[in-house]
Amino acid sequence: MDSKVYFQADALTEFCREVFIRHGMTADDAGITADVLVTADMRGIPSHGIGRLQRYVNGLKTGQMKANAETEIIRDTPVSTVINANGTMGPPVSVKAMESVIEKARNNGASFACVYESNHFGIAGYYAMMALKHDMIGIAMTNTAALGVPTFGRQVMFGTNPLAFCAPAEKEGAFVLDMSTTVVSRGKIEVYDREGKALPHNWAVDKTGKSATDAGKILDDMFHRYGGGILPLGGLGEMFGGYKGYGLAVMVDILCSVLCGAPFGSQISDTATSSARVSHFFGAIKIDNFRNAGEFRGDMDKMLSQLRNTPAAEGEEQVYFAGQKEMEHEKSARKNGIPLSPSTINNLGKIAGELQIEFPASVNKNKGE
Amino acid sequence: MDSKVYFQADALTEFCREVFIRHGMTADDAGITADVLVTADMRGIPSHGIGRLQRYVNGLKTGQMKANAETEIIRDTPVSTVINANGTMGPPVSVKAMESVIEKARNNGASFACVYESNHFGIAGYYAMMALKHDMIGIAMTNTAALGVPTFGRQVMFGTNPLAFCAPAEKEGAFVLDMSTTVVSRGKIEVYDREGKALPHNWAVDKTGKSATDAGKILDDMFHRYGGGILPLGGLGEMFGGYKGYGLAVMVDILCSVLCGAPFGSQISDTATSSARVSHFFGAIKIDNFRNAGEFRGDMDKMLSQLRNTPAAEGEEQVYFAGQKEMEHEKSARKNGIPLSPSTINNLGKIAGELQIEFPASVNKNKGE
Repeated sequence: MDSKVYFQADALTEFCREVFIRHGMTADDAGITADVLVTADMRGIPSHGIGRLQRYVNGLKTGQMKANAETEIIRDTPVSTVINANGTMGPPVSVKAMESVIEKARNNGASFACVYESNHFGIAGYYAMMALKHDMIGIAMTNTAALGVPTFGRQVMFGTNPLAFCAPAEKEGAFVLDMSTTVVSRGKIEVYDREGKALPHNWAVDKTGKSATDAGKILDDMFHRYGGGILPLGGLGEMFGGYKGYGLAVMVDILCSVLCGAPFGSQISDTATSSARVSHFFGAIKIDNFRNAGEFRGDMDKMLSQLRNTPAAEGEEQVYFAGQKEMEHEKSARKNGIPLSPSTINNLGKIAGELQIEFPASVNKNKGE
Repeated sequence: MDSKVYFQADALTEFCREVFIRHGMTADDAGITADVLVTADMRGIPSHGIGRLQRYVNGLKTGQMKANAETEIIRDTPVSTVINANGTMGPPVSVKAMESVIEKARNNGASFACVYESNHFGIAGYYAMMALKHDMIGIAMTNTAALGVPTFGRQVMFGTNPLAFCAPAEKEGAFVLDMSTTVVSRGKIEVYDREGKALPHNWAVDKTGKSATDAGKILDDMFHRYGGGILPLGGLGEMFGGYKGYGLAVMVDILCSVLCGAPFGSQISDTATSSARVSHFFGAIKIDNFRNAGEFRGDMDKMLSQLRNTPAAEGEEQVYFAGQKEMEHEKSARKNGIPLSPSTINNLGKIAGELQIEFPASVNKNKGE
């Protein structure tokens, strides 16, 4: 049963933008931040969508996130940039960093940027995907508050540290990998907690480092740093390659933080109402320096169509390539609107009420419901 | 009970070098290839060590691997290189590509190379680690014969596609992540087959795409492409993030092959006696362009010592960072020699006999045994 109500993407973006402006952001920065949140909903990633608006508003209210901090360029070479975000909002400084990376990659073939003292930047894929229309490979990563426990460990030592990698195709759209390097995100554990369900083994460990299934207890222990946390991709121990996910999480942390002298690992903690100050890493590689970009896109089409057309396992419908479901979701969201849950709508209504601005009407009648 | 016999690394390297020279390689190329194999043994990765010599010799005998093919530079810019290896041995062309990448990164800040029509290159970490002493981040990847089944699929569509990433530290050595993107390598399944053990669930699927435990049957079905194969890191379905390992494997394939127009995915098959022609991707990023390299190494020391000193889970001894065990293994191997199994020694003896060269004596007496 779909209890969700649908809203027009543009209307939600405009609403978020207005909320951010009222909290002191410039119209441009507010527009970027709104677009990042709503794009996540459009792509079927509501954990990073408009449902997070409350935490962003909290961040702005408490000063954890600064509406208009001046960002500083600390290092600047033809292939590298280091930016001190000075506590500003994650999305605008990230878009600017990625634009600069793309411009430098156009001129010099490849370029990378570190951004530190930043805040939650939404979906990593948003920034990586900015490279696609320039016929570049796009890369984006961020560290997060420490929630991940290393192989054989029992305390959090790294974040869910997502990495995004994308490459353009022609008819098939694009390959867009956007993944946390832990086996699941904290959001997934929160869903199990709300639904009172036991976690599957191999998702998280308790204070002793043993596989644990009590979602509420794990969330509480993680928040207070009593011990325990989420396992890296590959799960517990070495049997299923947990050390690989652990290694990838640390790789992301090295690129985001050690490369520019920012806090890393267990030094990063969320507050009760908002997210931690974090660091990001962005990159772009120009395809034409290796091969004609049109030919590249043609081969990407072949690869991606082979993947989605390979026979499915018994009981499964089809195989997807990374980004395919999100692309299909976006297409549907543009047509039918973005589905929001009753609790998200309720929460957004409160934000609207507080600022005395109007929350958009739903579009469910357009769906013939 | 340790039934292994120990040999001096230098003696094994010299033996391999002589074997390669007798098969037509130049002394330099033979020396590089020998060093790559023996380094794998020294680092405790015998699956990629001297035990593979027979498959390299087979490759040279059948012409799958060419002792002295001319390699061609197809594209050459300050930050990119594309090399057609023309079927030459993997290690020498890979060392030369990585040397050029490092030289270009020194001058331009970052650089990347694709090598196609190459052969098995041993451990990816060998090339990534070449960047360490130049205060650079090192990257190396390769595609392999298709052995991996995508999430929800039942046919092999990508290789075990390893990726290596390393970053220099000071006292702690270095962070060296070197991992296949499938949950296990084929070698691991071969070990279970030899020992007649059932595979754990979530390692591989059968022809129908269901989790399977019969190692011998899976190896046979994979070799003949009847269906089934190894699962990506994260295992079966989406519950444990299998789509992430699948996405990483395709990412490696894009960088190694689509970026330079080489065969990819299911187009790549091993022969019965040797490995498939494959493509590699190498990269180096100069740390000084972001931050003083000495400060970087200092922070890496902090990060890595925090990781190895974090409390262990109950029942475990300690937490390791990526590359730590391999570094310790290398230290021990330099002192005590390299352990080889009876079957490997037997096989190397046959190669020695065929060429009428001497196989080195063991050093077990030095260990006081």
